[in-house]
Amino acid sequence: MQEFNRSAEIIAMEKLFDRLWPINRSITGDGVRHTHDILGELVPLTRTEVPSGSHIFDWIVPPEWELNEAYIIDPNGHRILDVQENNLHLISYSSPFRGTLSKSELEDHLHSLPDLPDAIPYLTSYYNQTWGFCLSQKERVSLPEGNYKIVVDTKLKTNGSMTISEAVLPGETEDEVLISTYTCHPSMANNELSGPLVAAFLYQRLAAMPSRRLTYRFAFLVETIGAIAYLHQKGEHLKQRLKAGLVATCVGLDVPFTYKRSLRGNTLIDRIMGQVLKEENVDHSIIDFFPWGSDERQYCSPGFDLPVGSLMRGSYLDFPEYHTSLDNRDLISFAAISESVDVYLATCMALERNIIYRNLVANGEPQLGKYNLYPKVGSLRQVETERQELLWFLSLADGRRDLLEIASTSGVSIERLEAAARKCLETQIVEIVH
Amino acid sequence: MQEFNRSAEIIAMEKLFDRLWPINRSITGDGVRHTHDILGELVPLTRTEVPSGSHIFDWIVPPEWELNEAYIIDPNGHRILDVQENNLHLISYSSPFRGTLSKSELEDHLHSLPDLPDAIPYLTSYYNQTWGFCLSQKERVSLPEGNYKIVVDTKLKTNGSMTISEAVLPGETEDEVLISTYTCHPSMANNELSGPLVAAFLYQRLAAMPSRRLTYRFAFLVETIGAIAYLHQKGEHLKQRLKAGLVATCVGLDVPFTYKRSLRGNTLIDRIMGQVLKEENVDHSIIDFFPWGSDERQYCSPGFDLPVGSLMRGSYLDFPEYHTSLDNRDLISFAAISESVDVYLATCMALERNIIYRNLVANGEPQLGKYNLYPKVGSLRQVETERQELLWFLSLADGRRDLLEIASTSGVSIERLEAAARKCLETQIVEIVH
Amino acid sequence: MQEFNRSAEIIAMEKLFDRLWPINRSITGDGVRHTHDILGELVPLTRTEVPSGSHIFDWIVPPEWELNEAYIIDPNGHRILDVQENNLHLISYSSPFRGTLSKSELEDHLHSLPDLPDAIPYLTSYYNQTWGFCLSQKERVSLPEGNYKIVVDTKLKTNGSMTISEAVLPGETEDEVLISTYTCHPSMANNELSGPLVAAFLYQRLAAMPSRRLTYRFAFLVETIGAIAYLHQKGEHLKQRLKAGLVATCVGLDVPFTYKRSLRGNTLIDRIMGQVLKEENVDHSIIDFFPWGSDERQYCSPGFDLPVGSLMRGSYLDFPEYHTSLDNRDLISFAAISESVDVYLATCMALERNIIYRNLVANGEPQLGKYNLYPKVGSLRQVETERQELLWFLSLADGRRDLLEIASTSGVSIERLEAAARKCLETQIVEIVH
Repeated sequence: MQEFNRSAEIIAMEKLFDRLWPINRSITGDGVRHTHDILGELVPLTRTEVPSGSHIFDWIVPPEWELNEAYIIDPNGHRILDVQENNLHLISYSSPFRGTLSKSELEDHLHSLPDLPDAIPYLTSYYNQTWGFCLSQKERVSLPEGNYKIVVDTKLKTNGSMTISEAVLPGETEDEVLISTYTCHPSMANNELSGPLVAAFLYQRLAAMPSRRLTYRFAFLVETIGAIAYLHQKGEHLKQRLKAGLVATCVGLDVPFTYKRSLRGNTLIDRIMGQVLKEENVDHSIIDFFPWGSDERQYCSPGFDLPVGSLMRGSYLDFPEYHTSLDNRDLISFAAISESVDVYLATCMALERNIIYRNLVANGEPQLGKYNLYPKVGSLRQVETERQELLWFLSLADGRRDLLEIASTSGVSIERLEAAARKCLETQIVEIVH
Repeated sequence: MQEFNRSAEIIAMEKLFDRLWPINRSITGDGVRHTHDILGELVPLTRTEVPSGSHIFDWIVPPEWELNEAYIIDPNGHRILDVQENNLHLISYSSPFRGTLSKSELEDHLHSLPDLPDAIPYLTSYYNQTWGFCLSQKERVSLPEGNYKIVVDTKLKTNGSMTISEAVLPGETEDEVLISTYTCHPSMANNELSGPLVAAFLYQRLAAMPSRRLTYRFAFLVETIGAIAYLHQKGEHLKQRLKAGLVATCVGLDVPFTYKRSLRGNTLIDRIMGQVLKEENVDHSIIDFFPWGSDERQYCSPGFDLPVGSLMRGSYLDFPEYHTSLDNRDLISFAAISESVDVYLATCMALERNIIYRNLVANGEPQLGKYNLYPKVGSLRQVETERQELLWFLSLADGRRDLLEIASTSGVSIERLEAAARKCLETQIVEIVH
Repeated sequence: MQEFNRSAEIIAMEKLFDRLWPINRSITGDGVRHTHDILGELVPLTRTEVPSGSHIFDWIVPPEWELNEAYIIDPNGHRILDVQENNLHLISYSSPFRGTLSKSELEDHLHSLPDLPDAIPYLTSYYNQTWGFCLSQKERVSLPEGNYKIVVDTKLKTNGSMTISEAVLPGETEDEVLISTYTCHPSMANNELSGPLVAAFLYQRLAAMPSRRLTYRFAFLVETIGAIAYLHQKGEHLKQRLKAGLVATCVGLDVPFTYKRSLRGNTLIDRIMGQVLKEENVDHSIIDFFPWGSDERQYCSPGFDLPVGSLMRGSYLDFPEYHTSLDNRDLISFAAISESVDVYLATCMALERNIIYRNLVANGEPQLGKYNLYPKVGSLRQVETERQELLWFLSLADGRRDLLEIASTSGVSIERLEAAARKCLETQIVEIVH
């Protein structure tokens, strides 16, 4: 196993965050590409450009959006709502506009949140051509009467493309684990950058291991349409190979974990998360699938029905700063993000260990003394515990149950059962079935 | 849907009740025929006369019972216990008798209820030849000493028959729903007429609908032997076609609903009643099958094992007036009977809606905006609720789950899911599987 | 059924106990043979001698251990720790030794329990050659300084054998029930003799019955290696024939019953014990299988996976006198042992009654009056209860459910259901399927 330096990871996370934060991302465009350039320093990403106009299942990839500048000159000649200052000021995918409007005409194009007067809302209009500016309710109420000069210098390029990337960390087998996240929001901390950060640093930790049994596929997508494009490209492959997957989103808050089950509710990822969250002894809740939220709804759509859930801290449903300028660096905790990587890694480790063994001395119990398998050192209690773990493993390793089922039946952790399995493999009284 | 006038239904129910009440019904005879004549005005009944002596499975149809007159002349010359006054006074199926008995000889043929001194008990002796009179305990204790002249002018006609009737309300498919009730008790309100009333007015409400997907079969039987005769005639047909059925009995009291499950406990009628009673938001309890009670025990006998339960208000087990003269017009509520029809109808509607759909845009979610499927009007909350209902439907409509399972998984009502299904059918993104 | 005399059984148990108690048993040797001679007076045992050195699955039968004498002469010339006085004084399977040791040299070979200062521990060393003496902590602290003369006159005979015995009580069918117990501990009361006592007296009670449907196999084994040898010999037979089995151990205390489930947890013995312990109305708890304890772990090893659980009073896990000289006649209750036989017998009776019947009048209910099956005598309540039992039986006897499942669904006891079944068999309206 890698030597792990917690504080180094947190410092590296903060630096990465600070480089990614100011980039003006949308579902297409150079913001995404620039983001993937930076993430590519940690994760060897393979990029796919899906051309605008491509038919992907029920969807058509939209034109690529290019933002040059966008601001307003107020009646006093001041430049306000400049995207240079805060890239939430412009509705994402705003169509180009130049002109002068009275304040009341402008009002139809302004968006604020009366209930959160300090927050700039984050709004998009991918599939309806319009333009608009977002601002805090405080700023809005102070706008003077008079004429406003509007500059929205954007382009919708029909010869553009949508960028999605993946990295595959190969293992000894073709069984795959998917970690899916997205890079399609501009400056958002919990509901954007926490996901790619967890994915990138999980990649680093897994890559540092000398070997892996499973193959790990990391996808850095665009929510919804990017996941659909990814399934268009890799869906059949995933149907064959994918054993378990997680959508990483909203993993940046220092609040309890939330695991949202896959559609079927009893797939491998559902079973393993129940065990891992218990074994890791972290505060958590487990909730059933519902068909809105993040890209789990694409992976679990009836045509694919993949074993993919979502591991979050809280969720997009329950933090009030969601989709506003308040979802920023102050809201999140890098220690929490690092701890999220811990639980993602523990999940991968549990999947690595989740092997099916067959006890070759199945008729009556093996004579443990003969194989030198009786634990020798430690307190009487430790010795007895270790002996019982060994007996549980041998008793249930029948060539059908996986280690997860043995853990769940016996109450012994997957890690301890694997230690027992390893000793038995050495003495050749068990074999690996799968 | 029909225009529905609650008070008109209640008035019509009362009129029907008052015509049916005085008729002296038994398991055979003109009382049943007269009852079916009257019910036939609302429901186009097809009558079957099963000849006395017919072998129907393990049973033989008894001779037809004809009652001409029955009364007693007391020592003072007064005519008492006359069936003209109350048709419970004579034990049903009493054999003919004329003679004079002392009071103590008569006592062996008198039946009363010391614990309910005002009630005349309702007794029968279908399969043992005897005669007897029923009276209230109050009247009994006032009988003077002396000789009583007995007149029981009845006949047991071996060339008679037993009358059962049915009506079929055809639907677009051959899948059938059975509503079974009985008309074999004399003047009894809750444990007799409430059942035929619910069946007849349910028929009316269903017949008023422009069309129905399912075929409805209404059976007006004799309890036990009539249901066995009906199964002898239609059992194989029902095994092929019947999707769900209910025995309507004791549905006249203003007390919570009781659903008694079918034998297997998890048939379609059991699943649908659980959902409907929850959705209708009526006080209710659901109880397991037990092999006594009404005709559900025939439908659920091991040779048929049909998906038939019984929907009651309270039940025959728990009202003290059961099988006495106190089960009369004062006991029941016509508003309650009309409400019972509501829940029966809601059950039929849920069965009508319980279709299996297949989402044709199964790979990833459909682009709802493209189909104009995103709800447009209503409060933000309504719009979001409607969107979620649409997503639940599309997410679970996989060509295997029926709408009932989707309702139970999602918490969305069958009616709301059907509304979503209808919109999706219009845009051809789903198809009907069955 | 046999006439049963409780106090005679208890007296016979006490006599048997007093003859078996002083015998110095181990896993091999004449102690076991002598024990089986005595048990053979009640149970016609067939003895198997498994030669030392035999390979039985993963194990090798050890040399036979012969103990001639063992004691110590203390510095004052007193003979102490003599096995003649208490056969726990010598570690079972001690290798021969003669010599003089200082007190401190001797200390390495002494074993006591500081927390139970009055108890002599019971220790064994079957597979590691060593010798040692066991004594109470009280005696140990009073040993004087000086030289001790040690005499351990034992032999490990490689041409010896291990003794196991069984008795088969034949029934009308080849379906078998196994009662397995062990006779390999020296003077131990609850965790040794209570088991063979229950087995022997259960045999007597079953043998006194005029006939039995099932065949009963009683095994008097050596824990672990004896059970493995028995499975080596009879395992394939048991896989074919065994319907249910119990390991009888720790059944001598007047404490609640504990049923430890078989590995699969839902085998016939698990289902029947749940029903019997409820019907017998005894305090009890039911616990899941765990792969240590007594010989259930051999029967449930993955290669056999037999339907064998263990019925105990308390268990080996929870009585502090376990494996010490305090597990003696004072600890146990012969009335409790006799009551244990009651529950074992009730289990056998439930298995005897657990037949699959088929109702031949499956279409509609049978006309019970015709068969004279309606109960006639008893209070109204008794008559109604008996009628309902009859209806439950007929309603569920579909040729697939066993009587146990009918009992569990209906809440009627297996015994009452069998009474109903017997009446129906007489009138030929049901048949036996298996």
